[in-house]
Amino acid sequence: MKRLINKILVANRGVPAVRVMNTCRDKKIKTVAVYSTPDRLAYHVFLADEAIHIGEGPPTDSYLNMEKIIDAALKTGADAIHPGWGFLAENPKFAQAVQDAGLIWIGPPPKVIELMGDKTRAKKIAQRANVPTIPGISNVKSTEEVLRWMKEEEITFPIMIKAAAGGGGKGMVKVESEEELSVALEKARSEAKKAFGDDTLLVEKYIERGRHIEVQVIADQYGNVVHLFERECTIQRRNQKIIEEAPSPTLDPSLRQEICFTAVRLMRKIGYYSAGTVEFIFDSKTQQFYFLEVNTRLQVEHGVTELITGLDIVSLMIDIAEGKKLPFTQEDIHPNRWAMEVRVNAEDPRTFSPSFGSITRLEIPQGPGIRAASGVYEGADVPPYYDSLITLVMSAGTDRYDAIRVMDRALSRGLRVEGIKTNAPLLLSIIRHPKFIEGEFSTRFIEEHFEELLSMFKEKTTDDEALKIAQYIAMVSALGPQSWM
Amino acid sequence: MKRLINKILVANRGVPAVRVMNTCRDKKIKTVAVYSTPDRLAYHVFLADEAIHIGEGPPTDSYLNMEKIIDAALKTGADAIHPGWGFLAENPKFAQAVQDAGLIWIGPPPKVIELMGDKTRAKKIAQRANVPTIPGISNVKSTEEVLRWMKEEEITFPIMIKAAAGGGGKGMVKVESEEELSVALEKARSEAKKAFGDDTLLVEKYIERGRHIEVQVIADQYGNVVHLFERECTIQRRNQKIIEEAPSPTLDPSLRQEICFTAVRLMRKIGYYSAGTVEFIFDSKTQQFYFLEVNTRLQVEHGVTELITGLDIVSLMIDIAEGKKLPFTQEDIHPNRWAMEVRVNAEDPRTFSPSFGSITRLEIPQGPGIRAASGVYEGADVPPYYDSLITLVMSAGTDRYDAIRVMDRALSRGLRVEGIKTNAPLLLSIIRHPKFIEGEFSTRFIEEHFEELLSMFKEKTTDDEALKIAQYIAMVSALGPQSWM
Repeated sequence: MKRLINKILVANRGVPAVRVMNTCRDKKIKTVAVYSTPDRLAYHVFLADEAIHIGEGPPTDSYLNMEKIIDAALKTGADAIHPGWGFLAENPKFAQAVQDAGLIWIGPPPKVIELMGDKTRAKKIAQRANVPTIPGISNVKSTEEVLRWMKEEEITFPIMIKAAAGGGGKGMVKVESEEELSVALEKARSEAKKAFGDDTLLVEKYIERGRHIEVQVIADQYGNVVHLFERECTIQRRNQKIIEEAPSPTLDPSLRQEICFTAVRLMRKIGYYSAGTVEFIFDSKTQQFYFLEVNTRLQVEHGVTELITGLDIVSLMIDIAEGKKLPFTQEDIHPNRWAMEVRVNAEDPRTFSPSFGSITRLEIPQGPGIRAASGVYEGADVPPYYDSLITLVMSAGTDRYDAIRVMDRALSRGLRVEGIKTNAPLLLSIIRHPKFIEGEFSTRFIEEHFEELLSMFKEKTTDDEALKIAQYIAMVSALGPQSWM
Repeated sequence: MKRLINKILVANRGVPAVRVMNTCRDKKIKTVAVYSTPDRLAYHVFLADEAIHIGEGPPTDSYLNMEKIIDAALKTGADAIHPGWGFLAENPKFAQAVQDAGLIWIGPPPKVIELMGDKTRAKKIAQRANVPTIPGISNVKSTEEVLRWMKEEEITFPIMIKAAAGGGGKGMVKVESEEELSVALEKARSEAKKAFGDDTLLVEKYIERGRHIEVQVIADQYGNVVHLFERECTIQRRNQKIIEEAPSPTLDPSLRQEICFTAVRLMRKIGYYSAGTVEFIFDSKTQQFYFLEVNTRLQVEHGVTELITGLDIVSLMIDIAEGKKLPFTQEDIHPNRWAMEVRVNAEDPRTFSPSFGSITRLEIPQGPGIRAASGVYEGADVPPYYDSLITLVMSAGTDRYDAIRVMDRALSRGLRVEGIKTNAPLLLSIIRHPKFIEGEFSTRFIEEHFEELLSMFKEKTTDDEALKIAQYIAMVSALGPQSWM
């Protein structure tokens, strides 16, 4: 069905809301922001053409309040809702409620979100489609059940507990030994309940030197499914990605083809349309990849794919929701660079505990090879309720070394955040670590090298270009207006 | 000859100096800045590893002082000099002096600079190589001589006077009638003398609906010459480019191939290496292109080519100067997007008169599709002596419309300069003008539509997003710290 979208309500805040609104502006589509009380002066509120207050700080009172958001869309005459990522982006009830209200849902079919949101069913579908999956059991109730399965399948510790409804690392607990198992199950259950309102768990064999590789797929409503190549997102802290790149430094061309077309096959099978990602874990030892899950939404790291392909994925999502056909085929996609992204989070880089308050100084990286996307402005507040992501910094170069060098310049020369703590020193230490530069890492990279990474950024203060800037600006102020004036 | 470059003196200031230093940092090459007294707190001084004072404000006392610059390179142990663009970048004596001092010149051979710097000789070489050139006469002394030539060749007014040593629009005067001729020759002569120290003039037939199209070429010292496709730079004010894009919206694929390979052939013939540009004027009426000149240096607008190809042209220039071979062939170059650039100048957009003083507020555009490159920082001074360019804003999209939309967002939502005047309102009016959007324009676009363009930016203040930002920030300040704190 073809329908024209003239106004979009963006059911989000921060970086994702700003991202979607930027493309809406390009397409001359009006935007409606929704906001909580502490966000009344947030950046996304300013960028939108209209803004509707939907409740108090806690997400359940605001950005997760489906009814208020749909009301806001109807009241402002929006034609469509884009959920960004996080909050309600993968909630099939919300997607369905949006459609039931006569609005266009900018995302995949609600049924597909539901299907893929249940990790157990998703895995079964993948298995039936001959997509390799990690050995595991679903709907786990007791430690005994887990131990029995391990014995039967000859699986040894460590193992991984996951929330069936999960995503973003929440409800994921790694278990190293039998002693830890019962506490870990309890922990995962309570995290899952809190984050997703559903405490169903599954348990899987843990892939020791695993790397996280995912395939970006874009598909229209007429069965045209195209992959936009893979991203590697192996650098994670507490199961949350913080550095992503495209292509993956570990895949050879034939594995790349295989993993990308496996993703296309699965997405075609489930009747997917819009942008979506098939996530895999890649075992470096055995060179095997296993299906993890399908992310039925725009992802934080979509920008690296945009950088290598020259496409605007948000724009394509809107076009697809309007009922347009994909304007290209697989053969038209020719990546011509290497791209990298870091997530600048408002957090203590040593403890990962969130940092909030007022951003007193904000400088965003610029220059050749750099793309930056900030969800905040200088003077803005970072409230304590939400995702800690404040800015994405991306780099592109002809090869991986170039992309790393450009990122080093962006972070050390171009980025300056004052008033709150950020993880920027940790990000810089990672991209300077010899193992990262070699491309030799697993999802445990940060754990394994944490002390080393910390010492790298403790030592480097004297050579800190951001500090140099601060001193320089102070000098300018002290010297006052120049002699030629 | 292969030599390793560990330290580069950048014989420039502002945007070009910052551009070169950014790539040097990526390549872990140390940098030396040179600066005049009013530039002692300029951005390029801060970015360099070392900085040497070379004189007072006027360029002849500082950035044109060859001896002091070469001394600075020798004193600091630099291996090489990159001239950026402008100042000494196309001065063959300087290039030769750099080599004579045992330093590496990051640019083409001094002899080629000399050859192409003499517009008359350059044109003859092009003619001998069967590259089409505009009818004209060289070494013009008198009005009589011009009138005689016009009669013989059946050429009618307007005609164009150019400085033989010229570039950047200086010393170029268009003459509409016989009455204006003698004053125009005098004006061109004095401008040429002032800008290049050489008052030799040439006169050419004026191409009525001319479009400026140029081909970026990159070549190594072993005869490998590759074009990186064309740029169109037709939007000019007073013969100076202010908006550039790649590819050109007016060339069809066969003309594109022809013009690009004509450029390659010419550059191969003259023994060119490093980055260089062959400039053409394209007659929309007859679909003919004519050789204008070769720019034997990095150009302001090289970034749009980097955006479509994924290459770093400054990095390639350094590699070529070190004696490396080109790492690709023509077949490896696959542009996969459309890119656009605007030059943000410190000037009154109504009168083009330069604006100088202190930049009290500076916000640089960011977000999807945007690349920005600023030569100044917030708090910096813009002294009266130099080029008015303060920032380049580039955009990229899948097609020309996308690139225009992203640029519109960058300029109206992302750019904010206070304390000095800039041409940003004019740039925005141009990219919103229906004729620009259609791709229907000549080098006279601004003259022809000037009143219309002015009225476009007079009317739009109420809808000005930059103003909206200012009001918003004021509101944040007034409301003070937020309730959740």
